[in-house]
Amino acid sequence: MGILKTVEGGVTAAKGFEAAGVEAAVKYQNRKDMALVYSATPCKVAGVFTSNVVKAAPVVWDQKIVASAPYVQAVVVNSGIANAGTGTQGMDCCRQEAACAGEALGIPPEAVLVASTGVIGKQMPVERLQEGIRKLAAAKSASLDAGLDAARAIMTTDTVHKQIAVQVEIGGREVTLGGMCKGSGMIHPNMCTMLAFVTTDANISKEMLQKALSADVVDSFNMISVDGDTSTNDTLLVLANGLAGNEEITGEGPDYHTFCEALHQITTYLARKMAGDGEGATALFETKVVGAATREEARILAKSVICSSLTKAAIFGHDANWGRILCALGYSGVIFDPEHVDLYFQDKERRIHIYGNGVGQDYSEEEATKILSSPEVTVLVDMHMGTQEATAWGCDLSYEYVRINADYRS
Amino acid sequence: MGILKTVEGGVTAAKGFEAAGVEAAVKYQNRKDMALVYSATPCKVAGVFTSNVVKAAPVVWDQKIVASAPYVQAVVVNSGIANAGTGTQGMDCCRQEAACAGEALGIPPEAVLVASTGVIGKQMPVERLQEGIRKLAAAKSASLDAGLDAARAIMTTDTVHKQIAVQVEIGGREVTLGGMCKGSGMIHPNMCTMLAFVTTDANISKEMLQKALSADVVDSFNMISVDGDTSTNDTLLVLANGLAGNEEITGEGPDYHTFCEALHQITTYLARKMAGDGEGATALFETKVVGAATREEARILAKSVICSSLTKAAIFGHDANWGRILCALGYSGVIFDPEHVDLYFQDKERRIHIYGNGVGQDYSEEEATKILSSPEVTVLVDMHMGTQEATAWGCDLSYEYVRINADYRS
Repeated sequence: MGILKTVEGGVTAAKGFEAAGVEAAVKYQNRKDMALVYSATPCKVAGVFTSNVVKAAPVVWDQKIVASAPYVQAVVVNSGIANAGTGTQGMDCCRQEAACAGEALGIPPEAVLVASTGVIGKQMPVERLQEGIRKLAAAKSASLDAGLDAARAIMTTDTVHKQIAVQVEIGGREVTLGGMCKGSGMIHPNMCTMLAFVTTDANISKEMLQKALSADVVDSFNMISVDGDTSTNDTLLVLANGLAGNEEITGEGPDYHTFCEALHQITTYLARKMAGDGEGATALFETKVVGAATREEARILAKSVICSSLTKAAIFGHDANWGRILCALGYSGVIFDPEHVDLYFQDKERRIHIYGNGVGQDYSEEEATKILSSPEVTVLVDMHMGTQEATAWGCDLSYEYVRINADYRS
Repeated sequence: MGILKTVEGGVTAAKGFEAAGVEAAVKYQNRKDMALVYSATPCKVAGVFTSNVVKAAPVVWDQKIVASAPYVQAVVVNSGIANAGTGTQGMDCCRQEAACAGEALGIPPEAVLVASTGVIGKQMPVERLQEGIRKLAAAKSASLDAGLDAARAIMTTDTVHKQIAVQVEIGGREVTLGGMCKGSGMIHPNMCTMLAFVTTDANISKEMLQKALSADVVDSFNMISVDGDTSTNDTLLVLANGLAGNEEITGEGPDYHTFCEALHQITTYLARKMAGDGEGATALFETKVVGAATREEARILAKSVICSSLTKAAIFGHDANWGRILCALGYSGVIFDPEHVDLYFQDKERRIHIYGNGVGQDYSEEEATKILSSPEVTVLVDMHMGTQEATAWGCDLSYEYVRINADYRS
């Protein structure tokens, strides 16, 4: 495959994409809280959405568009209110947002996707949204700064914006993919994450775009968890406008695999960022399982560890409490012999063996504490049952998580 | 069935049972940390144990005894160290504890059950345990105070001891059941809870005793969660010495059902206590699901709500954030229409309708905050899909939970 390189920017890195972020006072005051992603060239679209049976109105709207619209051109996003638990009034709001964006941008309302994130159960202030949409349409630009504005506007309790872009050669053409996403609570995606948007100028059929995305999330967004709560709003959209000019990818083959690699670079970067910026998090907590009998078992084991509240609290306390990790592997549902598992703590500089042959190893607590004080802590689990592996990403559990969520609505 | 009445005491309430709690300095200093339950009359025994594939040595030991020993007479318990992740040395320790107790009490070692709770991965101080066992044998008594000593000695991060006793008439005889248990972290039983012990003078066959216990835990200990972590040590034992003199219960029928009712009184009391005294908890958080299509779906829905970190944090903040409750029902795995669900908050004095017809109801936030400030908060969920119901018990998620678990080992 072509050489994959990271480039500046996010959703406006790929040819033909514009973006904007503006203040609309949907709920937050004095900060950008609405974002637009736009392409004058019609885009193929693929999406994955929350598996929660309680779906926010924008999820219902987008699922219909992704399934049936011939093309899309815009995504309108707001933070502050989730438009979930809002009944028919919530669906009406989506329609009005799409109609307003269609008018402001000169495109059909069926080419407009919408997404919302924030508190559940509040009705949306439709007029402020419409005002915001008109501002977005006026402000939109293909600059990297405009992409950054959008990435900032979709944040809720996130502490940093999250975006990335990569370039790769496909069929002799330079293809760019860019993405942005937001966390950071109610994160336990079971189809995709809260809100993530990827744009690309790749020329790819709708069918292959959806195939690439659906295959990808299993090892990217579905491998992260902040708090085990699968949101009502999880939405991941990929828009492809074809402007790179490569021959259309219509089946599996080298071009498709190159595209998948590039997409995976984007999604795992965003997923890791989201985990590390989980509500109240002081560290990214990564669990890598190797030597598993099957890929699926590796995934289950890795996720069980990063989801364990006790393990997460121990990571926050820089406490090498490997018993909790072993315990979380044990209740994952995967059958194994604890006597034949090895556990290691590692960071970028060192690795220590903490458990093997059924008992704790003779490691230096001081070394362990050093590793556990890194901003990125990794537990390596060797199951010695086969050759499959998987990695999951979470974060520690801190006082701040409790504080944020004890008074989120106020 | 006979009238069920609560009586004083715990594991020594039933005829012929003795108990003790002593200081053995297993890990804790200056507090009782070893307990004994003993019956001079041989007992039938039934047990349920953790489903975690990583099982503590005492669980492995007890499972063998429960499966094969003709009778048992003693249970030796220590707090401070869990004897889990301790390999063959851990199993040796169980054997030595049983041998020592057998000698001190004049009973076969195969009549001795053992249980441990505390930190995982540390080896046990065998000599201190043996010293403790000799003290226990010398101190044992049938008094209610001795039962209380035992209930206190098994505590770890529990803030209160937990015991109860009930009496009921079976076959013209007064039958007593008493129990004690300890929580309070790593509580998400998936067979039973951390450690719980029930004694009874009922005359019941081993087969029916196990049947009663296995059926009971599904709606008692398996319906609680503190933090979603299923421990390596979960153990629930019932010892029946037959001294009440009722005709032996050998099959289903009125006597068996009376016994089951009494057992359920004990187990739900202990399970609720354990949930309400979860690590760092400021409130018992109960979720009652009614109108479900099946009993199993009612259980799944109720447990999903009490396990939601976000909902637990909202309860801690006395925040009527019903969106998180709806969200937790939605990702439980049960399929339903969110438009046809009703949610209520209630405490002992009032009930308010917070969600229905797909939208939030017009309730008083002030009233809601009052209910959420109660020491026992109940969410009532009406699914309108059938007639089945279930109740689950958890607790709120507080700063204190994080503090306790960030430095548990230190």
